[in-house]
Amino acid sequence: METNTKRRVLSGMRPTGRLHLGNYMGALYNWVRLQREYSCYFFIADIHALTTDYADPGDIRSKSFEVALDFLGAGLDPEQCVIFRQSAVPAHSELYTLFGMITPLGWLERVPTYKDQQEQLREKELNTHGFLGYPLLQSADILLYKPDFVPVGQDQVSHVELTREVARRFNQLYSSAVTPEVAAAASDKERMKAEISENVIETELLPEPKVLLTPSPKLPGLDGRKMSKSYGNTIGLTDSAEELKKKLRPMVTDPARVRRTDPGDPDKCPVGDLHKVFSTPETLAKVYDGCRNATIGCIECKGWCADSILREIEPIAERRRGFEAQPALVQDILTTGAAKAREQADATMAEVRAAMGL
Amino acid sequence: METNTKRRVLSGMRPTGRLHLGNYMGALYNWVRLQREYSCYFFIADIHALTTDYADPGDIRSKSFEVALDFLGAGLDPEQCVIFRQSAVPAHSELYTLFGMITPLGWLERVPTYKDQQEQLREKELNTHGFLGYPLLQSADILLYKPDFVPVGQDQVSHVELTREVARRFNQLYSSAVTPEVAAAASDKERMKAEISENVIETELLPEPKVLLTPSPKLPGLDGRKMSKSYGNTIGLTDSAEELKKKLRPMVTDPARVRRTDPGDPDKCPVGDLHKVFSTPETLAKVYDGCRNATIGCIECKGWCADSILREIEPIAERRRGFEAQPALVQDILTTGAAKAREQADATMAEVRAAMGL
Repeated sequence: METNTKRRVLSGMRPTGRLHLGNYMGALYNWVRLQREYSCYFFIADIHALTTDYADPGDIRSKSFEVALDFLGAGLDPEQCVIFRQSAVPAHSELYTLFGMITPLGWLERVPTYKDQQEQLREKELNTHGFLGYPLLQSADILLYKPDFVPVGQDQVSHVELTREVARRFNQLYSSAVTPEVAAAASDKERMKAEISENVIETELLPEPKVLLTPSPKLPGLDGRKMSKSYGNTIGLTDSAEELKKKLRPMVTDPARVRRTDPGDPDKCPVGDLHKVFSTPETLAKVYDGCRNATIGCIECKGWCADSILREIEPIAERRRGFEAQPALVQDILTTGAAKAREQADATMAEVRAAMGL
Repeated sequence: METNTKRRVLSGMRPTGRLHLGNYMGALYNWVRLQREYSCYFFIADIHALTTDYADPGDIRSKSFEVALDFLGAGLDPEQCVIFRQSAVPAHSELYTLFGMITPLGWLERVPTYKDQQEQLREKELNTHGFLGYPLLQSADILLYKPDFVPVGQDQVSHVELTREVARRFNQLYSSAVTPEVAAAASDKERMKAEISENVIETELLPEPKVLLTPSPKLPGLDGRKMSKSYGNTIGLTDSAEELKKKLRPMVTDPARVRRTDPGDPDKCPVGDLHKVFSTPETLAKVYDGCRNATIGCIECKGWCADSILREIEPIAERRRGFEAQPALVQDILTTGAAKAREQADATMAEVRAAMGL
């Protein structure tokens, strides 16, 4: 695994149950590529699921298992990266608890997603201590593993910003071991070491991670809006050819193309958007030409689209079925992943506890 | 240890360093008596110390060790009760994190000590997520061990009230496993079991603990105000005879007794208050008589007072010295205690996680 020479990356995903194409293209697709270059930690954020769904959590555990199957199906390789459930590593809660001591309420109240989400999910009574603290739990999730990079979409950048602020505050409060005053009290040799280390960024207890902004293509759902489970407009990551074709048939297209003989514009068509993500340049050329000249019908175009999507997701579904048939293996992957994660997390916690005097 | 038949008690104390007579009489004195009757868990609340002292935590670890020595010196017997450091049991943070999800901010903002303490300690910037959450951390501390009773002073009753509220909310949200709807889906035998258990209070996931209001005698410090480390008016639990006499000599007395020949009133004298706590009825009678009739001087009276206090604390100091000479033994007691505590706490967490769908 050569983790020592590789830079480290961490990211997580809430266990919403079986993933859809939007989840895949927005995160998992990138993760599979990142695992080759970086030492990666990918976790299933099952505690986070409770911040919004505490009143009706359902079976987060089995949803987490489904997500693990999707991770593995998509091509995350447990030999190359660490896959685990957040709740299997108590250090996430421990570091969150300790971070709470140094984090002003105002920092959390000002996180842009706080008021937004509270309004969007007004029926859920999200005025809780945990919902206010959830970006801080994310900070703990991240800083436990001291990653160099956190791959996120644009909407999550403010959370990484908060994480960096928390790391800075922690370092300011508790990195006193290398301040000149303390160093002066030590021996010459120790002082020299301290002075040298002061100029080295690695001596920071909790290094500030950088955002790795991941490309996340425009992926419309069946109704043309953003693909999202709550809109009921999703294409499943493991939909069969039949299911997929059945779903695409009534999918909205360019509203200007009312009849077969009307020319259309793939740039104004959600199906066109899917082609841009999944189709080859050759197919895409045929789509633009045929649609603009009304030489193909939408049904035909949707057939090609389904074929393109299937080329991406069929290998995923097949790999997933392989893992589905071996639940003990998947459980073992999660258990082994949690053990590896705990090793790193516990090492960080030992440093954090010592720094805070515990 | 016959823990199964005994009712359970839990209490904790912040590691403020060596304890004083006020800490002893306010809690530890009672704990020593409780351990004989109950199955007791007593913990050193080192994470709580950070809620107010995060900016300058000092060495909480060595202070915790001093407190452990005081616990053992005072007569807590590791064969009879479980003694441990809070931070050695990650489940405290885990349950606190999960409780945060279901606890409205308003519940915490309304805890009477919240605004009070914030104002009293204004220079400390206590407007943090952790300070707001500290009564919730106490709820987790308590409910992890499912105690029947929590011995507290009057000032902590509101925290036990919150704990009971949190337990009720948790039970309401997550005890659905025994509701008729779910039970109906199960087999006849299981349904019957569920129906029976619905009427039994023990089926509550987190039983509500009761307050055990502990007598805490009025214990004045050397300046007549309440004995408190922050006033610098304390008598140490292990002060020597010499230290004690030296401290008592300038202690304030009944202000009406200016000269040796003036009569005084032990009921208006802080030294009189100490006598009431520590002296025998015989000595107390001599004090009332001699003071009211001016047949004894304050110096003499303070000498008797010192003797009475010493009779209480000298055995403590001696026992403490015994443990002080065996730091490895004390460490071992804390490690063993933490293991026992973890066993109970992890059992509760397994139930809590399952109930919340994790």
